[in-house]
Amino acid sequence: MAENEKQGVTRRDLLETGIKVATVGGLTGMACRAGVVGGGALAAAAATLPATASAAGKADVPPGQLDEYYGFWSGGHSGEVRVLGLPSMRELMRIPVFNRESATGWGLTNESQKILSEGLTPETKEYLKKQGKVTYDHGDTHHPRMSYTAGSYDGRYLFINDKANTRIARIRLDIMKTDKVLEIPNAHAIHGLRLQRHPKTGYVFCNSEMRLPIPNTPETMKDPTKYSGLFSAVDAETMKVAWQVLVSGNLDNNDADYQGKYVASSCYNSEEGFTTAEMTASPTDHAVFFNIAAIEAAVKDGKAKMINGVPVVDGRKDAKSPFTRYIPVANSPHGCNATPDGKYVVLNGKLSPTVTVIEWAKLDELFAGKITEKDCIVANPEIGLGPLHTTFDGRGNGYTSVFLDSQIVKWNIEDAIKQYKGDKVNPIRQKLDVHYQVGHTNASNAESKDADGKWLVALCKFSKDRFLNVGPLKPENDQLIDISGDEMKLVHDGPTFAEPHDAIIVHKSKVKPVEVYNMNDPIFAGLHAQAKADGLVLGKDSKVVRDGKKVRVYMLSHAPTFSMTDFTVKLGDEVTVIVTNVDEVVDLTHGFTMINHNVCFEVGPQASASATFRADRPGVSYYYCQWFCHALHMEMQGRMFVEA
Amino acid sequence: MAENEKQGVTRRDLLETGIKVATVGGLTGMACRAGVVGGGALAAAAATLPATASAAGKADVPPGQLDEYYGFWSGGHSGEVRVLGLPSMRELMRIPVFNRESATGWGLTNESQKILSEGLTPETKEYLKKQGKVTYDHGDTHHPRMSYTAGSYDGRYLFINDKANTRIARIRLDIMKTDKVLEIPNAHAIHGLRLQRHPKTGYVFCNSEMRLPIPNTPETMKDPTKYSGLFSAVDAETMKVAWQVLVSGNLDNNDADYQGKYVASSCYNSEEGFTTAEMTASPTDHAVFFNIAAIEAAVKDGKAKMINGVPVVDGRKDAKSPFTRYIPVANSPHGCNATPDGKYVVLNGKLSPTVTVIEWAKLDELFAGKITEKDCIVANPEIGLGPLHTTFDGRGNGYTSVFLDSQIVKWNIEDAIKQYKGDKVNPIRQKLDVHYQVGHTNASNAESKDADGKWLVALCKFSKDRFLNVGPLKPENDQLIDISGDEMKLVHDGPTFAEPHDAIIVHKSKVKPVEVYNMNDPIFAGLHAQAKADGLVLGKDSKVVRDGKKVRVYMLSHAPTFSMTDFTVKLGDEVTVIVTNVDEVVDLTHGFTMINHNVCFEVGPQASASATFRADRPGVSYYYCQWFCHALHMEMQGRMFVEA
Repeated sequence: MAENEKQGVTRRDLLETGIKVATVGGLTGMACRAGVVGGGALAAAAATLPATASAAGKADVPPGQLDEYYGFWSGGHSGEVRVLGLPSMRELMRIPVFNRESATGWGLTNESQKILSEGLTPETKEYLKKQGKVTYDHGDTHHPRMSYTAGSYDGRYLFINDKANTRIARIRLDIMKTDKVLEIPNAHAIHGLRLQRHPKTGYVFCNSEMRLPIPNTPETMKDPTKYSGLFSAVDAETMKVAWQVLVSGNLDNNDADYQGKYVASSCYNSEEGFTTAEMTASPTDHAVFFNIAAIEAAVKDGKAKMINGVPVVDGRKDAKSPFTRYIPVANSPHGCNATPDGKYVVLNGKLSPTVTVIEWAKLDELFAGKITEKDCIVANPEIGLGPLHTTFDGRGNGYTSVFLDSQIVKWNIEDAIKQYKGDKVNPIRQKLDVHYQVGHTNASNAESKDADGKWLVALCKFSKDRFLNVGPLKPENDQLIDISGDEMKLVHDGPTFAEPHDAIIVHKSKVKPVEVYNMNDPIFAGLHAQAKADGLVLGKDSKVVRDGKKVRVYMLSHAPTFSMTDFTVKLGDEVTVIVTNVDEVVDLTHGFTMINHNVCFEVGPQASASATFRADRPGVSYYYCQWFCHALHMEMQGRMFVEA
Repeated sequence: MAENEKQGVTRRDLLETGIKVATVGGLTGMACRAGVVGGGALAAAAATLPATASAAGKADVPPGQLDEYYGFWSGGHSGEVRVLGLPSMRELMRIPVFNRESATGWGLTNESQKILSEGLTPETKEYLKKQGKVTYDHGDTHHPRMSYTAGSYDGRYLFINDKANTRIARIRLDIMKTDKVLEIPNAHAIHGLRLQRHPKTGYVFCNSEMRLPIPNTPETMKDPTKYSGLFSAVDAETMKVAWQVLVSGNLDNNDADYQGKYVASSCYNSEEGFTTAEMTASPTDHAVFFNIAAIEAAVKDGKAKMINGVPVVDGRKDAKSPFTRYIPVANSPHGCNATPDGKYVVLNGKLSPTVTVIEWAKLDELFAGKITEKDCIVANPEIGLGPLHTTFDGRGNGYTSVFLDSQIVKWNIEDAIKQYKGDKVNPIRQKLDVHYQVGHTNASNAESKDADGKWLVALCKFSKDRFLNVGPLKPENDQLIDISGDEMKLVHDGPTFAEPHDAIIVHKSKVKPVEVYNMNDPIFAGLHAQAKADGLVLGKDSKVVRDGKKVRVYMLSHAPTFSMTDFTVKLGDEVTVIVTNVDEVVDLTHGFTMINHNVCFEVGPQASASATFRADRPGVSYYYCQWFCHALHMEMQGRMFVEA
């Protein structure tokens, strides 16, 4: 009882905080509505568990049957990517990306350290070296996106940002492992990330969320006139920055068209202030549109300025450049979502109850100076309080997540366009309560031209009392909604650990991972070369190679044994253990753990991996296989003898 | 097609490897049966997805409804503990324990580093310091167990082992956070871990899996006669080792009785060999039984030898001590499971198709020399190929996981006892296929006297093709089985990341976590004291305190702002940021991330946390709240200015 009462109070408190801030921002109308609509809805939810349009059981996938969709989930500040099966919403795999992962040895093995460190700037390498590190231990992932060919998912790569340490990463989807990590120079906190869709994913588009003085020094850091926003295009194959554009305001989310010509980005803080009050003072902000061909031409013609090795062009508002256009939208737009028919992009209001629909086809004329920015806007429907992101069903409807109202709002795009023209038509189709405070939302195949309108996920930021209490830290709530019919139906509440910021849902036909590694994969090339130099064949020979104080131990794993039951080194040696798993059996992963030495890593079937450590503990230490492999798995162990 | 063919072949390969090794071990009879029964079953499974006794939908918990049970899951070598809801099998929370966790800052914050480091031995602290570390980055958890009062779960603590780095940890279940970590001196790889049940959990019983020479030096490390197994009892409140016992063989799993008198441990490698062939040579091994009162008396009387600060008594087989008894069981026993009626403990054969049932009540006479070891055995039913663990329904039945046959086998305990006495009765009730290669199994409340026989989980080590392919690394498969009726029914396949070694299922009435932190909790005492010494009140004041080259930044978080929009330090300062979250709202967690500084941590409602870093980057760096808190969450940021 007392607990319930407290929850009721605290939900209202939360909302009241929102009202106060919104009022400070001058949005009194919105604040009033929040008090009535949002507050009422939340207070009701606190009293009894809300009735939901539930079609329970539809999300259930019985034992022995497969899901129809892959979900690629951001792991938020857990730094990882998660692979889910839909509609069951079961987590099938975690892919470590920016985090240090205990089981796989991600961040420990020499191979993962190379991937994590080689794309860092020299300044960052130096900074980390002072802390005794080769890379960061954490990251903050937001937007996982799969590579495209001609507007369809092609199953090659998944890209994701790291807001915390200004990086992006690429995951190879054939083996579901991270293969490239890049720090973006000149930027600060990579947030919005989307991909070129046509003719294929040549560029990864990255927003620097924070505005930074250029250069960033003690002399410039307190001078507001030196600060600028920054947009980056990264070559998706080489994973090098192709070019950057200086912009006005804080870039938020972005999205690309289906023709390979333009990219749009929502932008908050056009005021270029530094406090929440300053940042939300103006009733309008803008969306920035980038003209790819114009930028490429300027870079090619040597018109870009080289800053830290990257060609940078000036696309700020005052520069009135051929590179950018600034289309005004209501205060603090957040989500930026291209429709799968290739026609429009939707900017979501956040502090305005509206979304703004902009037609890509108008941009040629805008950049040519034939029409004004406002002429590109074709609709501006009122959706609800706090619209954040919009997704699509491929049947002409948008589904917008509305944070303050805690709803998914379904609306018809063509009706919204008619309404904007003056027709008396209501584009809103349905408002469905979600629990609670939804952030991103995404529907099946919705970010490709193959949007199929079957399932939608609402990634709710608060779960409060929707699950058994697990202490002060609660899970998020990823809710699954059936959108295949005329009416949206909530079918599943999915608790998740911090913090699935965003997700995409991809039909299983688009993804074809391998079952077993290819030992000739380029990822093992370094180990093959080292073995050859040491006079042996990787995956065939077991050998201890001494090279001064360095010792390389080449070991094979074959269930349930390692090829060496012991090896001997000297105190203080730098030991590199290289394990090659010669098992060819599907799902027969081995591991190597050296007890009390901070060494533990994964070795998949036909894979090879290595870790380096100092033999600083005299006497015997055991190593064992930590990945269950066989009835005699526990006996799969050996001893390292460290001589004085 | 080719893929399917490969899977068929590889499954047979896996089994054949098993056969070869078993043959080496001399168990020809078992190997033959494996070739017929196990191999046939697996080959059939490869051809088509097996028909399962599925009652799909029963595990589904509709949106807005709560689960009935908590599941506390080992995260295996992910180093974490997972909290699940049952029967939905949804992961509600991850509790970082032995790992470095990106989102929460576990392993980064000063508070977590203190917990992770203060229980390490001086040698380990020194070893890690040489690597620039204060603790390990990974762990290998196996056996989560909840504290008891009078044989019932009491919801106070959860304990778990780390096999990789010879540690145990305690989790406070009121806040679901790790509060103590202890390295066990003299031991090597803590594996089996179970708790005293009566009168309450005073001791945590820990098995050193690896046998180690004592002392462990270059002089002793190759002398087999110096090696010994080791059993430890840790005080559950102080988290200090109370006493240790030298034993013969490699200790595996253990379990305690319901009277507080005895502990049993399975033991493999009674041969005391070092290779798989040596370790499995003998057809019998043993279970070791420890007499707690006898050991306590010896320690009290000063009869124990102090080794590295711990009193150690000699309980090896040859010592014929009052501390231990060695009861012979078939080759390589694995699981060790006390029945919830308090009468028996079951040793599971692993390399024998049988389980051995031993009656606790016989141990008084055994220790008194009145009966022989074999007299304590009351049943020895044949279960199937590779019995690993047994759990119970509180209605007199055991459920044994059988690894090679991939089955859960239900059998009746009293019928097995009758059969052992010579009655012609078959104790086997049902054999249910699981997919594939099951390790641990556990039923609801089954490890307490409140076993209620509703749900059982089978933690299957291989999932192979049971889920959408996610590359060479597959999830495990935690299957949920309804055992409430006469017949077991498989209702859910649950994919899980590496590697839920073991789990317990606890009725929700037994666990009462808090919703919001108490700011006076002892875990914040250090921060309160530091604030007081710095002339301010934690949670009230914001202040930058300079102390030579050390700077302490006291900051408050209150959605959607930090109490400081900026602060200034000097290049090279050692900066400690202390964030106190003054929000009192349930589920309103904030975070603090300092961009490009490897700093990111969680601050729950009414909690406080800190991290220390060097200000080695001149110019401006932003900090932000990474835990979604409010519609203006993205604006919750500030700037650190680093002066030259």
